[in-house]
Amino acid sequence: MAYDDQNIFARILRGELPAIKVYEDDQVLAFMDIMPQADGHTLVIPKTPAITLLDLDPDAAAYTIKIVQKIAQAIETGLDAQGIVLMQLSGASAGQTVPHVHFHLIPTSVHELGRHAAQMGDQEKIKSFAEKIKAALS
Amino acid sequence: MAYDDQNIFARILRGELPAIKVYEDDQVLAFMDIMPQADGHTLVIPKTPAITLLDLDPDAAAYTIKIVQKIAQAIETGLDAQGIVLMQLSGASAGQTVPHVHFHLIPTSVHELGRHAAQMGDQEKIKSFAEKIKAALS
Repeated sequence: MAYDDQNIFARILRGELPAIKVYEDDQVLAFMDIMPQADGHTLVIPKTPAITLLDLDPDAAAYTIKIVQKIAQAIETGLDAQGIVLMQLSGASAGQTVPHVHFHLIPTSVHELGRHAAQMGDQEKIKSFAEKIKAALS
Repeated sequence: MAYDDQNIFARILRGELPAIKVYEDDQVLAFMDIMPQADGHTLVIPKTPAITLLDLDPDAAAYTIKIVQKIAQAIETGLDAQGIVLMQLSGASAGQTVPHVHFHLIPTSVHELGRHAAQMGDQEKIKSFAEKIKAALS
């Protein structure tokens, strides 16, 4: 399957669609999932075009996981998370919905995870989580 | 929390407990989950002692994700997986049960995932999956 440069994450990377960003550098973007499974659900994506983790350039994967670690630490500190689920879904059969490789970081507490993409989250609440994560990063 | 060098993965790394290995080098070990959520459920762990992804040395994380990619590719090829779920659970609240950082690779097909650790898998079947993954790696 060829990479579709009209997928929503490609469009976010080009600035054609908005995102609530928490971190960006020349290789990676981290932003809030707008249909969160839990408060503070964040996505980390490499800028390199790749559909799944299996297709991703290994050096891009290596850099991305280091940023995933940093964002996870900021979620732990900024949102006082008890635990963090990292999930990366490769293929529609695995539940992947956007065909650009992405890492989910889902803070956990005593609450159960909600079902992904079932409904839009409260955008103001999501923005406030983003602010806390950004503050913990800096 | 201090790293407990008596955890089962530390014991597997020291050769004190058996494991159905699919890949090993000086930095990483990949082996079959013996309580699989799906056929072919494989674990990839860095040899560096660390409880969670947040504690793991970034260079060890970078190397490990490259091996995770290789194993995922071998699972796709060797087991004809339709998709792959990568999961990494940091903290008991996230569902982590063994306090040594580990990446789950769970092949998906049309079947639903089972519940992890609910029951032991069929060890002979698990060994046959390991053989297929190893064959795809070589």
